Amino acid sequence: MILIGERINASFKDIKRAIQEKDKGPIQEWARKQAAAGADYLDVNIGAASRKPEDMAWLVEVVQEAVPTPISIDSTNPEIIKAGLKALDGRPVLINSTTADDAKLEQLIPLAVEYNAGLIGVAMDERGSPQDVTRRVENGAKIFAAAVEGGLEPERIFLDPILMPIKFMQEQAKNVLEAIREYTMLSDPPPHISVGLSNICSKAAERSLISRTFVVMAMAMGLDAAVCNVLDEELLKAIATAELILNKEIYSDSYLQAFKMKVAGS
Amino acid sequence: MILIGERINASFKDIKRAIQEKDKGPIQEWARKQAAAGADYLDVNIGAASRKPEDMAWLVEVVQEAVPTPISIDSTNPEIIKAGLKALDGRPVLINSTTADDAKLEQLIPLAVEYNAGLIGVAMDERGSPQDVTRRVENGAKIFAAAVEGGLEPERIFLDPILMPIKFMQEQAKNVLEAIREYTMLSDPPPHISVGLSNICSKAAERSLISRTFVVMAMAMGLDAAVCNVLDEELLKAIATAELILNKEIYSDSYLQAFKMKVAGS
Repeated sequence: MILIGERINASFKDIKRAIQEKDKGPIQEWARKQAAAGADYLDVNIGAASRKPEDMAWLVEVVQEAVPTPISIDSTNPEIIKAGLKALDGRPVLINSTTADDAKLEQLIPLAVEYNAGLIGVAMDERGSPQDVTRRVENGAKIFAAAVEGGLEPERIFLDPILMPIKFMQEQAKNVLEAIREYTMLSDPPPHISVGLSNICSKAAERSLISRTFVVMAMAMGLDAAVCNVLDEELLKAIATAELILNKEIYSDSYLQAFKMKVAGS
Repeated sequence: MILIGERINASFKDIKRAIQEKDKGPIQEWARKQAAAGADYLDVNIGAASRKPEDMAWLVEVVQEAVPTPISIDSTNPEIIKAGLKALDGRPVLINSTTADDAKLEQLIPLAVEYNAGLIGVAMDERGSPQDVTRRVENGAKIFAAAVEGGLEPERIFLDPILMPIKFMQEQAKNVLEAIREYTMLSDPPPHISVGLSNICSKAAERSLISRTFVVMAMAMGLDAAVCNVLDEELLKAIATAELILNKEIYSDSYLQAFKMKVAGS
Protein backbone atom coordinates (compact mmCIF):
# COMPACT_ATOMS: atom_id res chain seq x y z
CA MET A 1 0.00 0.00 0.00
CA ILE A 2 1.31 3.41 -0.98
CA LEU A 3 0.54 5.87 1.82
CA ILE A 4 0.28 9.54 0.89
CA GLY A 5 0.13 11.78 3.97
CA GLU A 6 -2.78 14.22 3.68
CA ARG A 7 -1.95 16.69 6.41
CA ILE A 8 0.06 19.46 4.69
CA ASN A 9 -3.04 20.92 3.12
CA ALA A 10 -4.33 24.45 3.54
CA SER A 11 -7.81 23.14 4.21
CA PHE A 12 -6.39 22.57 7.73
CA LYS A 13 -6.32 25.89 9.57
CA ASP A 14 -2.83 25.56 11.00
CA ILE A 15 -1.37 24.91 7.55
CA LYS A 16 -3.38 27.72 5.97
CA ARG A 17 -2.03 30.18 8.51
CA ALA A 18 1.51 28.82 8.19
CA ILE A 19 1.47 29.30 4.43
CA GLN A 20 0.02 32.79 4.68
CA GLU A 21 2.51 33.85 7.34
CA LYS A 22 5.43 31.90 5.86
CA ASP A 23 5.85 30.04 9.14
CA LYS A 24 7.85 26.87 8.50
CA GLY A 25 7.22 25.45 11.99
CA PRO A 26 3.89 23.63 11.70
CA ILE A 27 4.63 22.50 8.14
CA GLN A 28 7.92 20.89 9.04
CA GLU A 29 6.44 19.37 12.16
CA TRP A 30 3.71 17.68 10.14
CA ALA A 31 6.29 16.61 7.56
CA ARG A 32 8.35 14.90 10.26
CA LYS A 33 5.36 13.35 12.01
CA GLN A 34 3.90 11.90 8.83
CA ALA A 35 7.26 10.65 7.58
CA ALA A 36 7.88 8.93 10.92
CA ALA A 37 4.41 7.35 10.83
CA GLY A 38 5.10 5.78 7.46
CA ALA A 39 4.08 8.14 4.67
CA ASP A 40 5.55 7.11 1.31
CA TYR A 41 4.67 10.55 -0.06
CA LEU A 42 3.71 13.83 1.58
CA ASP A 43 0.85 15.57 -0.16
CA VAL A 44 1.27 19.37 -0.26
CA ASN A 45 -1.64 21.65 -1.13
CA ILE A 46 -1.88 25.44 -0.86
CA GLY A 47 -5.50 25.56 -2.11
CA ALA A 48 -7.34 27.36 0.66
CA ALA A 49 -4.45 29.67 1.49
CA SER A 50 -3.12 31.03 -1.77
CA ARG A 51 -3.38 31.03 -5.55
CA LYS A 52 0.24 32.02 -6.10
CA PRO A 53 2.50 29.45 -7.75
CA GLU A 54 5.47 30.79 -5.75
CA ASP A 55 3.71 29.75 -2.53
CA MET A 56 3.67 26.14 -3.74
CA ALA A 57 7.38 26.43 -4.56
CA TRP A 58 7.99 27.73 -1.03
CA LEU A 59 5.91 24.92 0.51
CA VAL A 60 7.82 22.24 -1.41
CA GLU A 61 11.14 23.74 -0.31
CA VAL A 62 10.07 23.89 3.32
CA VAL A 63 9.02 20.23 3.30
CA GLN A 64 12.20 19.14 1.51
CA GLU A 65 14.27 20.92 4.15
CA ALA A 66 12.63 18.84 6.88
CA VAL A 67 12.50 15.28 5.48
CA PRO A 68 13.73 13.20 2.53
CA THR A 69 10.22 11.80 1.85
CA PRO A 70 8.89 11.98 -1.72
CA ILE A 71 6.27 14.64 -2.38
CA SER A 72 2.81 14.70 -3.93
CA ILE A 73 2.13 18.12 -5.45
CA ASP A 74 -1.58 18.70 -5.06
CA SER A 75 -3.43 21.40 -6.99
CA THR A 76 -6.21 21.79 -9.54
CA ASN A 77 -4.11 24.50 -11.21
CA PRO A 78 -1.38 23.29 -13.60
CA GLU A 79 0.63 26.49 -13.10
CA ILE A 80 0.81 25.83 -9.37
CA ILE A 81 1.82 22.22 -10.00
CA LYS A 82 4.55 23.38 -12.36
CA ALA A 83 5.95 25.74 -9.74
CA GLY A 84 6.05 22.87 -7.23
CA LEU A 85 7.82 20.59 -9.71
CA LYS A 86 10.43 23.25 -10.45
CA ALA A 87 11.21 23.55 -6.74
CA LEU A 88 11.98 19.82 -6.41
CA ASP A 89 15.44 18.67 -5.35
CA GLY A 90 15.31 15.53 -7.47
CA ARG A 91 13.39 13.27 -5.11
CA PRO A 92 10.47 11.17 -6.46
CA VAL A 93 7.24 13.04 -6.95
CA LEU A 94 3.57 12.57 -7.73
CA ILE A 95 1.44 15.06 -9.61
CA ASN A 96 -1.94 15.26 -7.86
CA SER A 97 -3.87 15.53 -10.15
CA THR A 98 -5.16 15.59 -13.67
CA THR A 99 -8.78 14.94 -14.64
CA ALA A 100 -10.12 13.40 -17.85
CA ASP A 101 -10.44 16.89 -19.43
CA ASP A 102 -8.42 17.07 -22.62
CA ALA A 103 -6.96 20.46 -21.67
CA LYS A 104 -5.70 19.06 -18.35
CA LEU A 105 -4.33 15.89 -19.90
CA GLU A 106 -2.48 17.85 -22.56
CA GLN A 107 -0.73 19.95 -19.94
CA LEU A 108 -0.11 17.47 -17.16
CA ILE A 109 1.01 14.31 -18.98
CA PRO A 110 4.00 16.10 -20.60
CA LEU A 111 4.85 17.62 -17.19
CA ALA A 112 4.82 14.14 -15.62
CA VAL A 113 7.10 12.88 -18.38
CA GLU A 114 9.46 15.85 -18.04
CA TYR A 115 9.80 15.53 -14.27
CA ASN A 116 9.73 11.72 -14.20
CA ALA A 117 6.69 12.04 -11.95
CA GLY A 118 3.84 9.71 -11.13
CA LEU A 119 0.46 11.10 -12.13
CA ILE A 120 -2.81 10.82 -10.22
CA GLY A 121 -5.80 10.98 -12.56
CA VAL A 122 -9.16 11.64 -10.93
CA ALA A 123 -12.10 10.23 -12.86
CA MET A 124 -13.74 13.62 -13.27
CA ASP A 125 -14.52 15.33 -16.57
CA GLU A 126 -15.92 18.60 -17.85
CA ARG A 127 -19.36 17.52 -16.59
CA GLY A 128 -18.03 17.25 -13.03
CA SER A 129 -17.85 14.25 -10.72
CA PRO A 130 -19.33 10.94 -11.86
CA GLN A 131 -22.31 9.51 -9.98
CA ASP A 132 -22.13 6.00 -11.39
CA VAL A 133 -19.64 3.22 -12.12
CA THR A 134 -19.68 3.58 -15.89
CA ARG A 135 -18.49 7.16 -16.07
CA ARG A 136 -15.84 6.48 -13.41
CA VAL A 137 -14.55 3.66 -15.58
CA GLU A 138 -14.79 5.64 -18.84
CA ASN A 139 -12.93 8.61 -17.39
CA GLY A 140 -10.33 6.39 -15.74
CA ALA A 141 -9.77 4.50 -18.97
CA LYS A 142 -9.45 7.74 -20.91
CA ILE A 143 -6.81 9.08 -18.50
CA PHE A 144 -4.97 5.75 -18.55
CA ALA A 145 -4.91 5.56 -22.35
CA ALA A 146 -3.78 9.18 -22.71
CA ALA A 147 -1.04 8.75 -20.10
CA VAL A 148 0.31 5.56 -21.68
CA GLU A 149 0.23 7.16 -25.11
CA GLY A 150 2.00 10.19 -23.67
CA GLY A 151 4.85 8.04 -22.43
CA LEU A 152 3.97 7.02 -18.85
CA GLU A 153 4.31 3.37 -17.81
CA PRO A 154 1.26 1.89 -16.02
CA GLU A 155 3.19 1.90 -12.74
CA ARG A 156 3.46 5.70 -12.87
CA ILE A 157 -0.30 6.14 -13.34
CA PHE A 158 -2.61 6.38 -10.32
CA LEU A 159 -6.34 6.30 -11.05
CA ASP A 160 -8.69 7.86 -8.50
CA PRO A 161 -12.39 6.90 -8.80
CA ILE A 162 -13.45 9.84 -6.57
CA LEU A 163 -14.62 8.92 -3.13
CA MET A 164 -17.53 10.98 -1.79
CA PRO A 165 -18.88 11.60 1.72
CA ILE A 166 -20.94 8.66 2.89
CA LYS A 167 -23.05 11.03 4.95
CA PHE A 168 -24.31 12.85 1.85
CA MET A 169 -23.82 10.44 -1.05
CA GLN A 170 -24.08 7.05 0.55
CA GLU A 171 -24.72 5.07 -2.62
CA GLN A 172 -21.45 6.28 -4.18
CA ALA A 173 -19.16 4.21 -1.93
CA LYS A 174 -20.33 0.98 -3.54
CA ASN A 175 -19.82 2.48 -7.00
CA VAL A 176 -16.26 3.41 -6.06
CA LEU A 177 -15.57 -0.18 -4.96
CA GLU A 178 -16.87 -1.50 -8.27
CA ALA A 179 -14.89 1.06 -10.28
CA ILE A 180 -11.71 0.01 -8.45
CA ARG A 181 -12.32 -3.58 -9.50
CA GLU A 182 -12.74 -2.51 -13.10
CA TYR A 183 -9.58 -0.36 -13.05
CA THR A 184 -7.57 -3.46 -12.16
CA MET A 185 -8.57 -4.92 -15.51
CA LEU A 186 -7.28 -2.01 -17.61
CA SER A 187 -3.82 -3.50 -18.08
CA ASP A 188 -1.45 -6.15 -16.79
CA PRO A 189 0.22 -4.95 -14.61
CA PRO A 190 -2.66 -2.64 -13.69
CA PRO A 191 -2.19 1.03 -12.90
CA HIS A 192 -2.06 2.06 -9.27
CA ILE A 193 -5.45 2.91 -7.80
CA SER A 194 -5.74 5.63 -5.19
CA VAL A 195 -8.45 7.45 -3.25
CA GLY A 196 -8.66 10.55 -1.10
CA LEU A 197 -9.67 8.40 1.86
CA SER A 198 -10.84 11.07 4.28
CA ASN A 199 -13.50 12.20 1.82
CA ILE A 200 -15.66 9.25 2.79
CA CYS A 201 -15.99 10.30 6.42
CA SER A 202 -16.40 14.03 5.83
CA LYS A 203 -18.77 15.46 8.49
CA ALA A 204 -19.48 11.92 9.73
CA ALA A 205 -19.33 10.60 13.26
CA GLU A 206 -17.00 7.55 13.50
CA ARG A 207 -14.49 9.01 11.04
CA SER A 208 -11.68 6.58 11.77
CA LEU A 209 -13.94 3.50 11.78
CA ILE A 210 -15.51 4.43 8.45
CA SER A 211 -12.14 5.22 6.87
CA ARG A 212 -10.42 2.04 7.96
CA THR A 213 -13.39 -0.15 7.07
CA PHE A 214 -13.67 1.36 3.62
CA VAL A 215 -9.96 1.19 2.87
CA VAL A 216 -9.65 -2.55 3.48
CA MET A 217 -12.81 -3.24 1.47
CA ALA A 218 -11.27 -1.18 -1.33
CA MET A 219 -7.96 -3.06 -0.97
CA ALA A 220 -9.89 -6.31 -1.51
CA MET A 221 -11.08 -4.82 -4.80
CA GLY A 222 -7.59 -3.68 -5.86
CA LEU A 223 -6.85 -0.32 -4.21
CA ASP A 224 -3.13 0.07 -3.56
CA ALA A 225 -2.70 3.74 -2.64
CA ALA A 226 -4.46 6.37 -0.55
CA VAL A 227 -4.10 9.99 0.42
CA CYS A 228 -4.94 9.54 4.10
CA ASN A 229 -4.32 10.32 7.74
CA VAL A 230 -1.15 8.30 8.31
CA LEU A 231 -1.22 9.32 11.99
CA ASP A 232 -4.33 7.18 12.52
CA GLU A 233 -2.82 4.07 14.11
CA GLU A 234 -6.00 2.00 13.81
CA LEU A 235 -6.05 2.80 10.10
CA LEU A 236 -2.48 1.60 9.66
CA LYS A 237 -3.19 -1.58 11.63
CA ALA A 238 -6.14 -2.31 9.36
CA ILE A 239 -4.03 -1.70 6.26
CA ALA A 240 -1.22 -3.94 7.59
CA THR A 241 -3.77 -6.69 8.23
CA ALA A 242 -5.32 -6.35 4.78
CA GLU A 243 -1.86 -6.67 3.19
CA LEU A 244 -1.41 -9.90 5.13
CA ILE A 245 -4.78 -11.21 3.98
CA LEU A 246 -3.92 -10.31 0.38
CA ASN A 247 -0.62 -12.19 0.85
CA LYS A 248 1.46 -9.07 0.18
CA GLU A 249 3.28 -9.32 3.50
CA ILE A 250 4.42 -12.51 5.18
CA TYR A 251 2.56 -13.57 8.33
CA SER A 252 4.29 -13.51 11.66
CA ASP A 253 2.68 -13.09 15.07
CA SER A 254 4.43 -9.71 15.25
CA TYR A 255 3.32 -8.56 11.79
CA LEU A 256 1.98 -5.25 13.12
CA GLN A 257 5.36 -4.36 14.52
CA ALA A 258 7.07 -5.47 11.32
CA PHE A 259 4.71 -3.30 9.27
CA LYS A 260 5.33 -0.31 11.51
CA MET A 261 9.09 -0.67 11.19
CA LYS A 262 8.85 -1.13 7.45
CA VAL A 263 6.69 1.93 6.78
CA ALA A 264 8.64 4.12 9.19
CA GLY A 265 11.79 3.20 7.29
CA SER A 266 10.22 3.98 3.94
CA MET B 1 -25.31 -9.71 7.24
CA ILE B 2 -26.53 -12.95 8.73
CA LEU B 3 -24.74 -13.55 12.02
CA ILE B 4 -24.45 -17.14 13.22
CA GLY B 5 -23.17 -17.34 16.80
CA GLU B 6 -20.28 -19.80 17.05
CA ARG B 7 -20.05 -20.31 20.77
CA ILE B 8 -22.24 -23.35 21.54
CA ASN B 9 -19.63 -25.72 20.17
CA ALA B 10 -17.98 -28.56 22.05
CA SER B 11 -14.59 -27.41 20.83
CA PHE B 12 -14.93 -24.90 23.69
CA LYS B 13 -14.13 -26.66 26.97
CA ASP B 14 -17.07 -25.28 28.95
CA ILE B 15 -19.54 -26.48 26.33
CA LYS B 16 -17.85 -29.87 26.01
CA ARG B 17 -18.17 -30.40 29.76
CA ALA B 18 -21.73 -29.12 29.82
CA ILE B 19 -22.80 -31.58 27.13
CA GLN B 20 -21.02 -34.49 28.79
CA GLU B 21 -22.51 -33.69 32.20
CA LYS B 22 -25.89 -32.60 30.82
CA ASP B 23 -25.48 -29.23 32.53
CA LYS B 24 -27.85 -26.74 30.89
CA GLY B 25 -26.34 -23.70 32.66
CA PRO B 26 -23.41 -22.67 30.44
CA ILE B 27 -25.27 -23.59 27.25
CA GLN B 28 -28.27 -21.46 28.06
CA GLU B 29 -26.07 -18.62 29.24
CA TRP B 30 -24.23 -18.57 25.91
CA ALA B 31 -27.53 -18.84 24.08
CA ARG B 32 -28.85 -15.76 25.88
CA LYS B 33 -25.62 -13.78 25.52
CA GLN B 34 -25.31 -14.45 21.79
CA ALA B 35 -28.99 -13.76 21.15
CA ALA B 36 -28.73 -10.46 23.01
CA ALA B 37 -25.60 -9.51 21.03
CA GLY B 38 -27.42 -9.98 17.76
CA ALA B 39 -27.06 -13.56 16.55
CA ASP B 40 -29.55 -14.40 13.79
CA TYR B 41 -28.83 -18.10 14.34
CA LEU B 42 -27.13 -20.02 17.13
CA ASP B 43 -24.79 -22.68 15.86
CA VAL B 44 -24.87 -25.87 17.98
CA ASN B 45 -22.17 -28.51 17.66
CA ILE B 46 -21.54 -31.56 19.88
CA GLY B 47 -18.47 -32.66 17.88
CA ALA B 48 -15.73 -32.83 20.48
CA ALA B 49 -18.02 -34.05 23.28
CA SER B 50 -20.14 -36.82 21.83
CA ARG B 51 -21.03 -38.89 18.80
CA LYS B 52 -24.54 -39.69 19.99
CA PRO B 53 -27.43 -38.24 17.96
CA GLU B 54 -29.50 -37.98 21.15
CA ASP B 55 -26.97 -35.54 22.58
CA MET B 56 -27.61 -33.18 19.64
CA ALA B 57 -31.35 -33.51 20.27
CA TRP B 58 -30.75 -32.61 23.92
CA LEU B 59 -28.57 -29.65 22.97
CA VAL B 60 -31.19 -28.27 20.58
CA GLU B 61 -33.89 -28.62 23.26
CA VAL B 62 -31.76 -26.87 25.86
CA VAL B 63 -31.09 -23.93 23.54
CA GLN B 64 -34.76 -23.70 22.49
CA GLU B 65 -35.76 -23.57 26.14
CA ALA B 66 -33.58 -20.48 26.65
CA VAL B 67 -34.18 -18.29 23.58
CA PRO B 68 -36.42 -18.02 20.50
CA THR B 69 -33.41 -17.57 18.18
CA PRO B 70 -33.19 -19.79 15.07
CA ILE B 71 -30.67 -22.61 15.23
CA SER B 72 -27.84 -23.82 13.02
CA ILE B 73 -27.36 -27.56 13.49
CA ASP B 74 -23.67 -28.21 12.99
CA SER B 75 -22.25 -31.66 12.41
CA THR B 76 -20.35 -33.64 9.81
CA ASN B 77 -22.61 -36.62 10.60
CA PRO B 78 -26.03 -36.64 8.88
CA GLU B 79 -27.51 -38.86 11.63
CA ILE B 80 -26.61 -36.26 14.23
CA ILE B 81 -28.08 -33.49 12.06
CA LYS B 82 -31.28 -35.50 11.67
CA ALA B 83 -31.61 -35.91 15.43
CA GLY B 84 -31.21 -32.14 15.85
CA LEU B 85 -33.84 -31.43 13.20
CA LYS B 86 -36.30 -33.80 14.85
CA ALA B 87 -35.91 -31.96 18.15
CA LEU B 88 -36.87 -28.60 16.62
CA ASP B 89 -39.95 -26.75 17.84
CA GLY B 90 -40.72 -25.28 14.41
CA ARG B 91 -38.37 -22.28 14.46
CA PRO B 92 -36.20 -21.55 11.39
CA VAL B 93 -33.10 -23.67 11.06
CA LEU B 94 -29.89 -24.04 9.10
CA ILE B 95 -28.22 -27.35 8.36
CA ASN B 96 -24.47 -26.88 8.83
CA SER B 97 -23.31 -28.53 6.60
CA THR B 98 -23.12 -30.62 3.50
CA THR B 99 -20.02 -30.95 1.30
CA ALA B 100 -19.86 -31.53 -2.44
CA ASP B 101 -19.72 -35.33 -1.88
CA ASP B 102 -22.58 -37.06 -3.68
CA ALA B 103 -23.36 -39.21 -0.66
CA LYS B 104 -23.71 -36.14 1.55
CA LEU B 105 -25.76 -34.20 -0.98
CA GLU B 106 -28.14 -37.13 -1.43
CA GLN B 107 -28.82 -37.27 2.30
CA LEU B 108 -28.81 -33.62 3.30
CA ILE B 109 -30.71 -31.90 0.50
CA PRO B 110 -33.87 -33.97 1.09
CA LEU B 111 -33.50 -33.31 4.83
CA ALA B 112 -33.32 -29.54 4.17
CA VAL B 113 -36.43 -29.79 2.00
CA GLU B 114 -38.31 -31.87 4.58
CA TYR B 115 -37.51 -29.50 7.46
CA ASN B 116 -37.77 -26.30 5.43
CA ALA B 117 -34.18 -25.60 6.45
CA GLY B 118 -31.43 -23.49 4.97
CA LEU B 119 -28.40 -25.51 3.93
CA ILE B 120 -24.74 -24.55 4.29
CA GLY B 121 -22.59 -26.24 1.68
CA VAL B 122 -18.85 -26.21 2.30
CA ALA B 123 -16.75 -26.36 -0.85
CA MET B 124 -15.03 -29.56 0.17
CA ASP B 125 -15.12 -32.85 -1.73
CA GLU B 126 -13.88 -36.42 -1.35
CA ARG B 127 -10.34 -35.15 -1.98
CA GLY B 128 -10.56 -32.86 1.06
CA SER B 129 -10.29 -29.07 1.28
CA PRO B 130 -9.54 -27.08 -1.87
CA GLN B 131 -6.28 -25.15 -2.07
CA ASP B 132 -7.19 -22.96 -5.03
CA VAL B 133 -10.02 -20.81 -6.38
CA THR B 134 -11.08 -23.18 -9.14
CA ARG B 135 -11.93 -26.15 -6.96
CA ARG B 136 -13.71 -23.88 -4.47
CA VAL B 137 -15.85 -22.61 -7.31
CA GLU B 138 -16.43 -26.05 -8.85
CA ASN B 139 -17.49 -27.55 -5.54
CA GLY B 140 -19.67 -24.58 -4.67
CA ALA B 141 -21.33 -24.70 -8.09
CA LYS B 142 -21.91 -28.44 -7.73
CA ILE B 143 -23.59 -28.00 -4.33
CA PHE B 144 -25.65 -25.08 -5.62
CA ALA B 145 -26.87 -26.99 -8.68
CA ALA B 146 -27.72 -30.09 -6.66
CA ALA B 147 -29.58 -28.05 -4.04
CA VAL B 148 -31.63 -26.12 -6.60
CA GLU B 149 -32.43 -29.34 -8.44
CA GLY B 150 -33.41 -30.92 -5.14
CA GLY B 151 -35.93 -28.16 -4.49
CA LEU B 152 -34.12 -25.45 -2.50
CA GLU B 153 -34.47 -21.81 -3.57
CA PRO B 154 -31.16 -19.87 -3.89
CA GLU B 155 -32.01 -17.91 -0.74
CA ARG B 156 -31.96 -21.13 1.31
CA ILE B 157 -28.49 -22.11 0.07
CA PHE B 158 -25.36 -20.88 1.86
CA LEU B 159 -22.04 -21.57 0.14
CA ASP B 160 -18.91 -21.70 2.28
CA PRO B 161 -15.57 -21.40 0.40
CA ILE B 162 -13.63 -22.74 3.44
CA LEU B 163 -11.56 -20.20 5.27
CA MET B 164 -8.21 -21.44 6.56
CA PRO B 165 -5.82 -20.18 9.25
CA ILE B 166 -3.78 -17.27 7.93
CA LYS B 167 -0.94 -18.33 10.21
CA PHE B 168 -0.50 -21.64 8.40
CA MET B 169 -2.05 -21.18 4.96
CA GLN B 170 -1.64 -17.51 4.30
CA GLU B 171 -2.18 -17.64 0.54
CA GLN B 172 -5.63 -19.20 0.95
CA ALA B 173 -7.31 -16.04 2.27
CA LYS B 174 -6.99 -14.33 -1.10
CA ASN B 175 -8.37 -17.42 -2.84
CA VAL B 176 -11.38 -17.36 -0.53
CA LEU B 177 -12.04 -13.70 -1.41
CA GLU B 178 -11.92 -14.53 -5.12
CA ALA B 179 -14.17 -17.58 -4.69
CA ILE B 180 -16.74 -15.41 -2.88
CA ARG B 181 -16.79 -13.04 -5.84
CA GLU B 182 -17.39 -15.95 -8.21
CA TYR B 183 -20.16 -17.41 -6.03
CA THR B 184 -22.10 -14.16 -6.43
CA MET B 185 -22.29 -14.86 -10.15
CA LEU B 186 -23.88 -18.31 -9.81
CA SER B 187 -27.44 -17.00 -9.96
CA ASP B 188 -29.55 -13.89 -9.67
CA PRO B 189 -30.38 -13.52 -6.82
CA PRO B 190 -27.16 -15.21 -5.71
CA PRO B 191 -27.02 -17.79 -2.94
CA HIS B 192 -25.95 -16.66 0.50
CA ILE B 193 -22.22 -16.89 1.09
CA SER B 194 -20.91 -17.76 4.53
CA VAL B 195 -17.59 -18.47 6.23
CA GLY B 196 -16.46 -19.89 9.54
CA LEU B 197 -14.81 -16.59 10.37
CA SER B 198 -12.73 -17.59 13.37
CA ASN B 199 -10.84 -20.13 11.27
CA ILE B 200 -8.78 -17.34 9.76
CA CYS B 201 -7.26 -16.28 13.06
CA SER B 202 -6.70 -19.74 14.51
CA LYS B 203 -3.52 -19.69 16.67
CA ALA B 204 -2.79 -16.14 15.50
CA ALA B 205 -2.01 -13.10 17.59
CA GLU B 206 -4.43 -10.21 16.82
CA ARG B 207 -7.41 -12.54 16.45
CA SER B 208 -10.08 -9.85 16.54
CA LEU B 209 -8.22 -7.49 14.19
CA ILE B 210 -7.64 -10.23 11.61
CA SER B 211 -11.25 -11.43 11.82
CA ARG B 212 -12.84 -8.04 11.45
CA THR B 213 -10.49 -6.96 8.67
CA PHE B 214 -11.11 -10.13 6.70
CA VAL B 215 -14.88 -10.06 7.15
CA VAL B 216 -15.33 -6.58 5.68
CA MET B 217 -13.00 -7.39 2.78
CA ALA B 218 -15.12 -10.49 2.16
CA MET B 219 -18.32 -8.43 2.43
CA ALA B 220 -16.95 -6.19 -0.35
CA MET B 221 -16.68 -9.33 -2.47
CA GLY B 222 -20.20 -10.55 -1.63
CA LEU B 223 -20.10 -12.38 1.71
CA ASP B 224 -23.41 -12.01 3.55
CA ALA B 225 -23.21 -14.51 6.40
CA ALA B 226 -20.67 -15.73 8.94
CA VAL B 227 -20.38 -18.17 11.79
CA CYS B 228 -18.54 -15.89 14.17
CA ASN B 229 -17.95 -14.49 17.63
CA VAL B 230 -20.97 -12.20 17.92
CA LEU B 231 -19.72 -11.06 21.34
CA ASP B 232 -16.79 -9.27 19.66
CA GLU B 233 -18.02 -5.67 19.66
CA GLU B 234 -15.29 -4.41 17.34
CA LEU B 235 -16.27 -7.10 14.84
CA LEU B 236 -19.90 -6.01 14.92
CA LYS B 237 -18.93 -2.36 14.52
CA ALA B 238 -16.86 -3.24 11.45
CA ILE B 239 -19.76 -5.26 10.00
CA ALA B 240 -22.22 -2.41 10.66
CA THR B 241 -19.88 0.00 8.90
CA ALA B 242 -19.39 -2.30 5.92
CA GLU B 243 -23.19 -2.59 5.54
CA LEU B 244 -23.33 1.20 5.45
CA ILE B 245 -20.60 1.35 2.80
CA LEU B 246 -22.42 -1.28 0.74
CA ASN B 247 -25.58 0.84 1.07
CA LYS B 248 -27.47 -1.93 2.85
CA GLU B 249 -28.24 0.26 5.87
CA ILE B 250 -29.11 3.94 5.79
CA TYR B 251 -26.50 6.36 7.11
CA SER B 252 -27.12 8.28 10.28
CA ASP B 253 -24.54 9.64 12.71
CA SER B 254 -25.83 7.10 15.22
CA TYR B 255 -25.72 4.16 12.80
CA LEU B 256 -23.73 2.00 15.24
CA GLN B 257 -26.44 2.32 17.84
CA ALA B 258 -29.13 1.67 15.24
CA PHE B 259 -27.31 -1.47 14.11
CA LYS B 260 -26.95 -2.69 17.68
CA MET B 261 -30.64 -2.21 18.37
CA LYS B 262 -31.58 -3.87 15.11
CA VAL B 263 -29.47 -6.99 15.60
CA ALA B 264 -30.40 -7.31 19.26
CA GLY B 265 -34.04 -7.29 18.22
CA SER B 266 -33.50 -9.93 15.55
